[in-house]
Amino acid sequence: MDGPEVRMDIATVCLSGTLDDKLAAASGAGFHGVEIFENDLVVSPWTPREIRRRCADLGLSIDLYQPFRDLEAVPPDVFAANLRRAGRKFDVMEQLGADTMLVCSSVSPDAVDDDDLAAEQLHELASRAAGRGIRIAYEALAWGRFVNTYEHSWRIVRKAGHPSLGLCLDSFHVLSRGSGITGIKVIPGAKIFFLQLADAPRLRMDVLQWSRHHRLFPGQGAFDLSAFLGAVAATGYAGPLSLEVFNDVFRQSDPVHTAVDAMRSLLVLREATARRGPERMRVAGLPVVPPSDGYAFVELTAPDPAEVLAALGFVYIGQHESRPAHLWQQGDARIVVRSDADVRIGALGVATPDPHAAARRAKRLLAPALSDLDYDDPAVRAPDGVGIVFCRPEGDWMADFTPPDPALVTTCGITGIDHVSLTAPFDDFDQIALFYRAALGLEAEPETEFAAPFGLIRSRSSADAGRRIRIALNVAALRRGDWAPAVREPQHIAFTSDDVVASAKAMRELGARLLDIPGNYYDDLAARFDLPAGRLASLREYSVLYDRDEHGEFLHFYTHMVGSRMFFEVVQRIDGYAGYGVANSPVRMAAHRQFRLSHE
Amino acid sequence: MDGPEVRMDIATVCLSGTLDDKLAAASGAGFHGVEIFENDLVVSPWTPREIRRRCADLGLSIDLYQPFRDLEAVPPDVFAANLRRAGRKFDVMEQLGADTMLVCSSVSPDAVDDDDLAAEQLHELASRAAGRGIRIAYEALAWGRFVNTYEHSWRIVRKAGHPSLGLCLDSFHVLSRGSGITGIKVIPGAKIFFLQLADAPRLRMDVLQWSRHHRLFPGQGAFDLSAFLGAVAATGYAGPLSLEVFNDVFRQSDPVHTAVDAMRSLLVLREATARRGPERMRVAGLPVVPPSDGYAFVELTAPDPAEVLAALGFVYIGQHESRPAHLWQQGDARIVVRSDADVRIGALGVATPDPHAAARRAKRLLAPALSDLDYDDPAVRAPDGVGIVFCRPEGDWMADFTPPDPALVTTCGITGIDHVSLTAPFDDFDQIALFYRAALGLEAEPETEFAAPFGLIRSRSSADAGRRIRIALNVAALRRGDWAPAVREPQHIAFTSDDVVASAKAMRELGARLLDIPGNYYDDLAARFDLPAGRLASLREYSVLYDRDEHGEFLHFYTHMVGSRMFFEVVQRIDGYAGYGVANSPVRMAAHRQFRLSHE
Repeated sequence: MDGPEVRMDIATVCLSGTLDDKLAAASGAGFHGVEIFENDLVVSPWTPREIRRRCADLGLSIDLYQPFRDLEAVPPDVFAANLRRAGRKFDVMEQLGADTMLVCSSVSPDAVDDDDLAAEQLHELASRAAGRGIRIAYEALAWGRFVNTYEHSWRIVRKAGHPSLGLCLDSFHVLSRGSGITGIKVIPGAKIFFLQLADAPRLRMDVLQWSRHHRLFPGQGAFDLSAFLGAVAATGYAGPLSLEVFNDVFRQSDPVHTAVDAMRSLLVLREATARRGPERMRVAGLPVVPPSDGYAFVELTAPDPAEVLAALGFVYIGQHESRPAHLWQQGDARIVVRSDADVRIGALGVATPDPHAAARRAKRLLAPALSDLDYDDPAVRAPDGVGIVFCRPEGDWMADFTPPDPALVTTCGITGIDHVSLTAPFDDFDQIALFYRAALGLEAEPETEFAAPFGLIRSRSSADAGRRIRIALNVAALRRGDWAPAVREPQHIAFTSDDVVASAKAMRELGARLLDIPGNYYDDLAARFDLPAGRLASLREYSVLYDRDEHGEFLHFYTHMVGSRMFFEVVQRIDGYAGYGVANSPVRMAAHRQFRLSHE
Repeated sequence: MDGPEVRMDIATVCLSGTLDDKLAAASGAGFHGVEIFENDLVVSPWTPREIRRRCADLGLSIDLYQPFRDLEAVPPDVFAANLRRAGRKFDVMEQLGADTMLVCSSVSPDAVDDDDLAAEQLHELASRAAGRGIRIAYEALAWGRFVNTYEHSWRIVRKAGHPSLGLCLDSFHVLSRGSGITGIKVIPGAKIFFLQLADAPRLRMDVLQWSRHHRLFPGQGAFDLSAFLGAVAATGYAGPLSLEVFNDVFRQSDPVHTAVDAMRSLLVLREATARRGPERMRVAGLPVVPPSDGYAFVELTAPDPAEVLAALGFVYIGQHESRPAHLWQQGDARIVVRSDADVRIGALGVATPDPHAAARRAKRLLAPALSDLDYDDPAVRAPDGVGIVFCRPEGDWMADFTPPDPALVTTCGITGIDHVSLTAPFDDFDQIALFYRAALGLEAEPETEFAAPFGLIRSRSSADAGRRIRIALNVAALRRGDWAPAVREPQHIAFTSDDVVASAKAMRELGARLLDIPGNYYDDLAARFDLPAGRLASLREYSVLYDRDEHGEFLHFYTHMVGSRMFFEVVQRIDGYAGYGVANSPVRMAAHRQFRLSHE
């Protein structure tokens, strides 16, 4: 268990809703405290005392009141008005029971470039704060007018020399500017009054807009937050780790989900940080990620997929001895079918030498456990609703299917499962990617974005070191509106073959409904690549798609939709091709739509 | 009528869907031709010949095939492969019946910085194209590796000196770099082979990302497109005006709506351009915008608003002589009530000296006419569904209400209508703003963005020169997801008062349900502004909100919701305050939600 030694906080600004929504969500996700964002308080019908009581009831401390803007380095009359304003806020903080106020470096046209004046005025503010039992945490905004690096804010704090004045460090403000973290090591931990954590994608844009719209929770972006947190921890900083994330999506999303995602991010960050040094950051009860031995199976829910699977050359192995689950197999590809009206991927069976440790890890990362009535092996639910069943590689679990496999045949050349492609809900895309990586020990692969017929799609894949578990996650780059003839939340399973053209031929002979690819695609292929004519002809004949990367080549084809959103793919990777043929996705999407239109 | 003299085109990439969706939408909106974006063709099940036939059936010419990338300034072996690739595309173009190919300046690592080589290779391509009856339009991408200004692309085209090689000018590539348009004037019109038009907001971000995600139709962004188009027209360019807009929203939106919006933008741009000079750009049948005399009335649909309006001090005037429409009045504020289950703003009655010309203008801007069974005066429907009724300022229309006004009283101090606030659908926000501006002759006011409890809101207002017609448009900055307790598409009417505190008092006495504002708001007001204690106390007592700008002060208060999304506001502008109190919107939103929560 975590002791209270590492406090985990969240700023109310991270979460959507009014203060009551936000506090309930933060408490529900297990946060210890909050930063109260001033606007949340101003619009609340609760008095500060009522907010204090509500937080106490929820087990939340109020660790920061923020932000106080444009205080320092101003002419005397402006400073007098600022002190008056601060005094009113001290009144509020006293009623709230909040003992630390965030002061951001000035962006005011009234401010002058004068460190001595800034230090002097911050000293005066800190003196008044001290009289009220309040501390001032001074933060350099990345876009501060004169003070915009933490090194500069530290020089001013040191110059001011007041015990009630310290620093607030915010990973975004430090890392967005590309500031090194070496300077953190010379700051005494006791002078860091507060620590705010946020990740972000690397964007080449105005830093203020980047900060206000595109921050992410740790692990969702491109910043090296574990190095940053490690450096802060090394100073002896013992205050809260507090998430402060401004994000357009989170501002609109269910705060209960967002808060759980936030907590998971923080746990994963602590683990990564502890691995680099500071033992204090270790998360109790979080086993290391066990190595994976690939997909034991994929569970498909469907009313009756016998015809589809048989046409792909799968062989029916039998029914589970105690549950209505049916095993189909071809090569090392195993599909467990569970009857359901909705055709979708129900669960991923992940082979691992220590299923119980793997499941404990996933649960510590806030994945709910699935009932052992449904699975013999320990199982959890990923945030996108897909089950993850951890089972031994030796396949003990297959013993539950009778009769056991008599003689597996590979009628259509399928040898195993290459990857599974899932569609993450828009609000949780980054977090679901993080969950799969953290729970299964996968590494992120480069993200791609492509223009599909009905909008942009972001695709992010991850794989384990042995490339035995690959998961591709897709999401619309913009939440879809009403006009969206695209398939909603498509999923697919990609099987491997050593000869996809032969597999396509064999499947077509078995009556499989494979997707026809338009001739224009092959004309374009002929223009782009100098493929041998015979090869191009066979790709065209069997509607096999083609891609190439710096390693090798990729051949693949698709089935029609099964149900409203499920399909299958067969892929052949030649010479270590590392991608997923994403460039061909728009062709596939248009062909799926064309098929629907002509059959509706 | 437009003659064919100014051809108006649209690139298929502007529109969502597959090629069949796009072509039908372009034709339906009245475009004369299209640019075929290669990816749209590649994923289409139609052969190029079938696409040609389909376009002919729809009355569309195919004026450009695009884009051909990374051709020029490369080593001989790469160039040979590029010519081979181009040859394949010429085959496609021949079947399509497209005679112009867009070649973008290279971004390839294979390219070298050598204008002579670029010219030589473009000359070779043009020679081959000429043999096929094809022209090459060379375009400088703003992010081209070596060629990224139109001045540079023109030097290369001039150097190449081939009659089948000319320029493609794209307003985004020119204006995003801040290039002046003077250089356009030295290009002979006959050497401009194609003209692409796109607007964009001013964003401080990577130009490639800016271009790929944030382009807008003319008039929706910050570029001076009429100056640009005027400069191009002055060269004698006689080719199509073609819209090429990459936009994340349009990629997902109903292409039928998008195409209509696109056409409207182009008409408005032509009008603005013609006003600056080139008569050729004039849009036939588009009367100039008549001056407005303010709001004649606002039509409200509601089941029975008598209680609400009476409590605000409105007086019932009477029923329309032939329709079930009821007039209520207070001061110069007139509300026409039409019975409907849904409470919303049905129409805006705009006073103008020439209602018929105003309506003709709106219809020429693609607004459908409303039936004269519903309105005595000419009326149209704005793209957001709100009616606009053009009527004479003298109030002839009021004669239809019997009995005529006997003795108007101003029981609660309301003197008129200050503004109407509408919520534009997400997909059409920029276009709806453009429509109101163009149809009513309004000027855009600065756009604001603010963090509301349930997500960011963008607010854009516009007003006529006399500030008699003000319309505020709001939209969520990100399309809302499932978790959105915010009021969907709120609307409100803001009335003016010369003393809002007195108005609030009088209305409360009449039993009006006014919105209570939390005490925290007034504590914050006290911290931010040095208001006299008595004044602050009366604001607090009557839940009146306060704002201030460089001109003056703003006092305002709100009613509760009437129906699911309608409310009223009363405002007082002191000393020329120009805004709308947007800073107070989050307080109002939280209070509206609080009220709903406590009454659900």
